[in-house]
Amino acid sequence: MTLDEKIEIAALLDDMGVDIIEAGFPIASDGDFEAVRRIAGNTRNAVICGLARANENDIRRCWEAVRHARRPRIHTFIGTSPLHRRYQVKLDMDAMAERIHATVSLARSLCEDVQWSPMDATRTEEDYLCRVCEIAINAGATTINIPDTVGYTVPRESADIIAMLVERVPGIENVTLATHCHNDLGMATANALLAVEAGARQIECTVNGLGERAGNTALEEVVMALRVRNDVMPFTTGIDTTRIMHVSRRVASVSGFPVQYNKAIVGKNAFAHESGIHQDGMLKHSETFEIMRPEDVGLVESNLVMGKHSGRAALRKKFADLGYDLGDNQLNDAFVRFKKLADKKKQVYDDDLVALMQDSSAKGEDYLRIDELRVVCGTSGQSSADLTLSVDGEVKTVTARGDGPVDATFNAVQALYSHSARLQLYQVHAVTEGSDAQATVSVRMEDNGFIATGQSSDTDTVVASAKAYVHALNRLRVRVAQGARIPVEERATGLGVQTV
Amino acid sequence: MTLDEKIEIAALLDDMGVDIIEAGFPIASDGDFEAVRRIAGNTRNAVICGLARANENDIRRCWEAVRHARRPRIHTFIGTSPLHRRYQVKLDMDAMAERIHATVSLARSLCEDVQWSPMDATRTEEDYLCRVCEIAINAGATTINIPDTVGYTVPRESADIIAMLVERVPGIENVTLATHCHNDLGMATANALLAVEAGARQIECTVNGLGERAGNTALEEVVMALRVRNDVMPFTTGIDTTRIMHVSRRVASVSGFPVQYNKAIVGKNAFAHESGIHQDGMLKHSETFEIMRPEDVGLVESNLVMGKHSGRAALRKKFADLGYDLGDNQLNDAFVRFKKLADKKKQVYDDDLVALMQDSSAKGEDYLRIDELRVVCGTSGQSSADLTLSVDGEVKTVTARGDGPVDATFNAVQALYSHSARLQLYQVHAVTEGSDAQATVSVRMEDNGFIATGQSSDTDTVVASAKAYVHALNRLRVRVAQGARIPVEERATGLGVQTV
Repeated sequence: MTLDEKIEIAALLDDMGVDIIEAGFPIASDGDFEAVRRIAGNTRNAVICGLARANENDIRRCWEAVRHARRPRIHTFIGTSPLHRRYQVKLDMDAMAERIHATVSLARSLCEDVQWSPMDATRTEEDYLCRVCEIAINAGATTINIPDTVGYTVPRESADIIAMLVERVPGIENVTLATHCHNDLGMATANALLAVEAGARQIECTVNGLGERAGNTALEEVVMALRVRNDVMPFTTGIDTTRIMHVSRRVASVSGFPVQYNKAIVGKNAFAHESGIHQDGMLKHSETFEIMRPEDVGLVESNLVMGKHSGRAALRKKFADLGYDLGDNQLNDAFVRFKKLADKKKQVYDDDLVALMQDSSAKGEDYLRIDELRVVCGTSGQSSADLTLSVDGEVKTVTARGDGPVDATFNAVQALYSHSARLQLYQVHAVTEGSDAQATVSVRMEDNGFIATGQSSDTDTVVASAKAYVHALNRLRVRVAQGARIPVEERATGLGVQTV
Repeated sequence: MTLDEKIEIAALLDDMGVDIIEAGFPIASDGDFEAVRRIAGNTRNAVICGLARANENDIRRCWEAVRHARRPRIHTFIGTSPLHRRYQVKLDMDAMAERIHATVSLARSLCEDVQWSPMDATRTEEDYLCRVCEIAINAGATTINIPDTVGYTVPRESADIIAMLVERVPGIENVTLATHCHNDLGMATANALLAVEAGARQIECTVNGLGERAGNTALEEVVMALRVRNDVMPFTTGIDTTRIMHVSRRVASVSGFPVQYNKAIVGKNAFAHESGIHQDGMLKHSETFEIMRPEDVGLVESNLVMGKHSGRAALRKKFADLGYDLGDNQLNDAFVRFKKLADKKKQVYDDDLVALMQDSSAKGEDYLRIDELRVVCGTSGQSSADLTLSVDGEVKTVTARGDGPVDATFNAVQALYSHSARLQLYQVHAVTEGSDAQATVSVRMEDNGFIATGQSSDTDTVVASAKAYVHALNRLRVRVAQGARIPVEERATGLGVQTV
């Protein structure tokens, strides 16, 4: 994510009522530091938390980044399981205990609000886990987070470990217990909720369940489960659930990781009733098969389809319904692009407008810019692309060939702007139904450890591909300049939901 | 899915060790009947089960379809919750009880192996649920399945309902209890496993967690969870886990529902360690962050990359590694297509070969066939497509325009073969990395309640789109001819995993 995107997502999370935003890992890079610092300065309600390993440099750098937040937090962690002690941190039990005392004490001397995590807690010996939790509490930790780092735990164990800590650790009643689950075995949501039932009061989760490997607990799942089943889980979150779909789409777009059709809550099919019996039941009585309404998560089927005759006021209203509050300049810009789209498409659907807003490649302040593209492809041999590209303001033209229109186009870009970046991921999604639908193309590029994603939408898939590719190259250039390699334990949208 | 695809998937499930395959709903259409009948005749080990509502016609038709299986089963169901009794089935408690007795008795008079499900069991009054389960057992049911039809249940409840039935229902010790969970709140896997701990011995699940709305319990998640955590869940399945990736990919391809990157077990990132700390840990000691090995699910990173100089024997060996045992004719056909691909791509990866095998549009026995396509697209105005199409053997040519290359191509097909089908879904995935990667295009078309998917792979996205579109139209034509509308409670790959 770019700095702007990180700030935007953090603002969306703050607006939707997330209690704590884990904004980044300040020591990982100057870019990460700046992102955390800016989010700290911009956020109105949420606690802004930065990550720090168990050493003085990490913790001081983290404090520098979060200190101007209205509610700052330092989150420091160390791997406490036998495997982590031996292979990762290379400290024995006693040396690690001392390190924990020293680092948590330091963090607390800087910041009133300190979260501490024994990484790989679920594979740490119970006695040692109790010992180090007690040390962290005595050193001033205000939240103790129990991570299931390898996604190993089953729900009963997730409850048991929290219950065990509640029972055995002196002083635990004075801190907040948090649960941090991974979804490797498909149980992150259940594990988090059972931890809450056992006494945890903070759920670490991510939008769309993004995260390392199979991801973390999905925000939308725990939030809706606590709401739908409040009868058996009497806990509330401060989340405005009607913002869920908008935030989910935005995160999918910015991260370049689309949500699968049958993803719980936010998948395209999550509220679709396809089979005959289910459809029949829905018509007879919607509760027969529906435990939550699409509106509850902000999925509004609007009858107001926009077209080339729609005016500026209607567009502003429509964008407001979709969760975008546009200033006058933004509206003017969006209106121009909307008119251009409406010339190509008879009906402009909600999803088209979302794609329009999300087409960040259209901002036009970029080092590389596509001026003109013409591609010929088909069944007889190689494709060819005629490309006119602005490179830092200088206009260049080339014809290139390739296997398929996308390859030819990318080869043309390469011919005009030589680079060593590798295409890691290329995806196309139709924004709406029908063959004149806009295509949204996401690409991810990697260059010597630096990674950037690009995205663009167009009714022409090949044009969208070219713009997304150039967008990713522009961003990669910025990342390389910032020295922003993938930070340790990066979470695309790390955040905590504090349950009450 | 076509008949051939259903038979193929059933054979894959049988080979991987699935205990029970729910093959379809025989009364839903002649196509469904034929699929169940053929699968019943082909399957070596698994029980073949057909679905039937609680009436004589459904049950007799189901028996006709499954009776030639080595191990046939009838699965009959009725909605027992207050909402279902009142709005769906319109029977009071006593009348429904009589219906259950009569229909299960009928099923058992035909077939030794009868599964009965009280649909929406988790919202049925406990006393009534016990009563109807007892009736079904007395009438001869051998498996009682407890469906959480709306995906409403939390793990503790899933265990409690099974424990309650075990305790209260006379005769329950003589039948197998099954659990059927939906993933609406993200807890289908946990719910199924907790039901097993409480006494269920059959898990109803689907490959990739496909199914109504947010889907059902994912086979790969319960199987791997039971394996990885056999220490706390001492149950085994008969599944050969090294077949999981192959079956997952094949089901994703045939169903047209790709798996998201962070899907547990079978997602592209499920075994990827991206963050610095995790990568560092993996290098130091893989168990630090890894609870299962990619090889355990059949994810083999092979060093043997194929290219244009690879021979027939190497290709056969490679296909065998990937799970395809090819006969001589199949190998010859695959070899021709492989050589064609190797001319376009320097390195042919495993995923390219899988795409090659899965490109079912290449079979060439179709009503519509693309002979030649040439498309011009780009930033300046509309795209145009010159298409030569065989329609039932007659060769036709047209030039059409459209918004983007895909729209122009589809318009060209429409001009030569007029149809009223609507494009519901259009997706493109790059098969491997790099801009010369093959693109796999999936489309789903709908015409008056009939639905068909098409898929094709090519290094040219536009050509793949055209072939996938024509493939879907060919299949839709067959479905309409068979009268195969979406069957009631269709499950793309319904199957049961019997735990021991």
